[in-house]
Amino acid sequence: MKHYLEISQLSQHEITALIQRALYFKTHSVYPCYPKDIVAHLFYENSTRTRVSFELAAKHLSMAVVNLDLESSSESKGEVVEDTVNTLAAMGVNLFVIRHVQEGLPQRLADLCSEQVRIINAGDGAHAHPSQAMLDLMTIMERKPDLSLLKIAIVGDIRHSRVANSLQCICRKLGVGELTLVSPDVWKPTTIHYGRVTASLYDGIADADVLICLRVQRERLLASEHLDLASYRRDYALTCESLSYAKTDAMVMHPGPINRGIEIESDVADGPQSCILQQVRNGVFMRMAILEAVSSNPN
Amino acid sequence: MKHYLEISQLSQHEITALIQRALYFKTHSVYPCYPKDIVAHLFYENSTRTRVSFELAAKHLSMAVVNLDLESSSESKGEVVEDTVNTLAAMGVNLFVIRHVQEGLPQRLADLCSEQVRIINAGDGAHAHPSQAMLDLMTIMERKPDLSLLKIAIVGDIRHSRVANSLQCICRKLGVGELTLVSPDVWKPTTIHYGRVTASLYDGIADADVLICLRVQRERLLASEHLDLASYRRDYALTCESLSYAKTDAMVMHPGPINRGIEIESDVADGPQSCILQQVRNGVFMRMAILEAVSSNPN
Amino acid sequence: MKHYLEISQLSQHEITALIQRALYFKTHSVYPCYPKDIVAHLFYENSTRTRVSFELAAKHLSMAVVNLDLESSSESKGEVVEDTVNTLAAMGVNLFVIRHVQEGLPQRLADLCSEQVRIINAGDGAHAHPSQAMLDLMTIMERKPDLSLLKIAIVGDIRHSRVANSLQCICRKLGVGELTLVSPDVWKPTTIHYGRVTASLYDGIADADVLICLRVQRERLLASEHLDLASYRRDYALTCESLSYAKTDAMVMHPGPINRGIEIESDVADGPQSCILQQVRNGVFMRMAILEAVSSNPN
Repeated sequence: MKHYLEISQLSQHEITALIQRALYFKTHSVYPCYPKDIVAHLFYENSTRTRVSFELAAKHLSMAVVNLDLESSSESKGEVVEDTVNTLAAMGVNLFVIRHVQEGLPQRLADLCSEQVRIINAGDGAHAHPSQAMLDLMTIMERKPDLSLLKIAIVGDIRHSRVANSLQCICRKLGVGELTLVSPDVWKPTTIHYGRVTASLYDGIADADVLICLRVQRERLLASEHLDLASYRRDYALTCESLSYAKTDAMVMHPGPINRGIEIESDVADGPQSCILQQVRNGVFMRMAILEAVSSNPN
Repeated sequence: MKHYLEISQLSQHEITALIQRALYFKTHSVYPCYPKDIVAHLFYENSTRTRVSFELAAKHLSMAVVNLDLESSSESKGEVVEDTVNTLAAMGVNLFVIRHVQEGLPQRLADLCSEQVRIINAGDGAHAHPSQAMLDLMTIMERKPDLSLLKIAIVGDIRHSRVANSLQCICRKLGVGELTLVSPDVWKPTTIHYGRVTASLYDGIADADVLICLRVQRERLLASEHLDLASYRRDYALTCESLSYAKTDAMVMHPGPINRGIEIESDVADGPQSCILQQVRNGVFMRMAILEAVSSNPN
Repeated sequence: MKHYLEISQLSQHEITALIQRALYFKTHSVYPCYPKDIVAHLFYENSTRTRVSFELAAKHLSMAVVNLDLESSSESKGEVVEDTVNTLAAMGVNLFVIRHVQEGLPQRLADLCSEQVRIINAGDGAHAHPSQAMLDLMTIMERKPDLSLLKIAIVGDIRHSRVANSLQCICRKLGVGELTLVSPDVWKPTTIHYGRVTASLYDGIADADVLICLRVQRERLLASEHLDLASYRRDYALTCESLSYAKTDAMVMHPGPINRGIEIESDVADGPQSCILQQVRNGVFMRMAILEAVSSNPN
């Protein structure tokens, strides 16, 4: 694997091998060492949780880590991202974990960068968030390994969600039995990679094995003419009542950070069916597997 | 010791054992290793010196360190502190060094967090700053070990000072002979844990062995109707003249950062009786002792 | 060597020894270890590239690194830089890499600080940027070792450039054959350390062996009554055409970050004569040599 850009570029075999490797790391406490790798975290959008997850993954693998505060850095002096990457690569950085609002930027950087550089997409606009999708499927497969039998529902702002996009791709690749995308009409996806769209929460999550609740961008709600917070909560929030539509052992998931009382009630987020903290825990192991897979310095 | 929240929760024995351990670290150059511990610095208020002091302490003990820029992070996206702590704990962080304007927050987090998590209070509002109080007493005991014979004076804005609060608690626990709290009327403490309050600098520091000068928040002075900078300086600043009221070998201390020419004159801050840089130096060793004491991963 | 403040304080022998040491690091992959050194990066002005370059250099030498976010730190609470340095020194930091807008500040800190502290100037106002000048000469000497035969031209805002200042000093020290300083009249230097000033790009770079292009501060252009972007580009930008005035194997250099299409065209910056990324690469090795030379803890 050269870069890690989006799920659609991975084979089914590569995906399952990465998940197996992450599960291996989870059950072992001594990790391989990659001291020649230098990871730069280029977060043009803030994300404490994804950045720290990648940082801990790199440290567990004995990789050196450089954090860049890119909101007050040379980019603001007019340097283009490509030059920032080439400059850091000249300093010896070989692994770049990038989050940026611009869709497709990680791919463009991968096309342009020098031979020894590896790009890892940590979220590009509404396009893809492939490490999140992988850790979500890892979490599901730990509990419910036969994906072909599962009904998975994703609830929320499907249209603007890179998480929903990457999840559709991975569910298709791994042959998830049924996927439903539940969203109000204004947030219906414009492109569907896999699954069925519905505006009815009941229709979408009835009998589901897994409920993946998306974060609501409050700014987007406030700016919308066609939707308000109260109606969103009434029609789409995961509550104890709506949870009862799903299977009794349905897993509740959320990419975080959660808005308590908006898209999910605390009773559900903290309840026995919640797998939210398992997702976070698995994230570190999944990112270790990804960093190791793209490392250009063999162990 | 499970958490490190405030002096009142420690026994006299625990306090002296921590100080002894810090003194041990100060005289040795090889330190024990705790590579399984991961420390997150959650500073919701900025503090270069306390954060760097804890960071160096953790590095000396071979602990991994994660710094979070919490003024531009997920909290601003609506995540509550409890969820930030639980999320990082799920990633494997077990030691949390927290500074926050909200009084009692470290205690609340300690009550809620999972079994393996340890909370260290690095300052919560005007409530407590227990690592500062410990390093102050360590510095005093190095020079003047018999605390029962000492007269210690704290000068400044006692009412709003977490340092003054924690110092009162530790002076009571360790049986300091006499403690005076010197402040203008508007900054008199509303609750006294130990010691005697006076508005007269001369009365407060006459014959004192130790003078602890508090930082003046200039914003607070500017906003006050009843006090101005010139009168504060005239009545409460530590100058060569006011220093002469105290014992000739009186120690001069300050938690920093100092406002030269406001609460303390440069002649005094940089003079032979000043112990300000010794406090800073001892701070790293004190925090090593604290981190080691709460570490959940035995060496 | 005690501090590293400006080129004029170094002997010719010290300069060439540092460059030799940097070239040695470049060709070896195992580096000496200085685990007792603690480096603090005090960047009062932002600079991703210089900060990361020093940070990687320190990590390669196994030095501990502390980064300070000084725009939101204790300085804003009124602490003077001298107290910040003394405080960190009391915590055990012995190497300070400092960038500050105030000219001469690193020298002042070096004069005041305690015995074991070493100050490294990473850029002070328009005064000096000695590590940049060293890596530039290292890059030149790799390709064109006989400096006495060379004609070097520096093009741009000579007056306000610390890079141009330090380059003049190093070219004089090392006996560079000919140095021309090319700039529009409004940016002519007020003091010349070495070389000849000209306002004509053709005159300045005709037959040159090395072209060093300076970054244009767009803010300065916008604020100028006597110069605008279009005339600057027409008269001073490095383009394929202007490059043709120089020797056919002339090296093209730039301290970065580059403004594509302003002071340099992309065809030139990315062309076969560009040494810009070699400069960046050499920068890490040069800074390793500098950190090692000032380290107060012998290996």
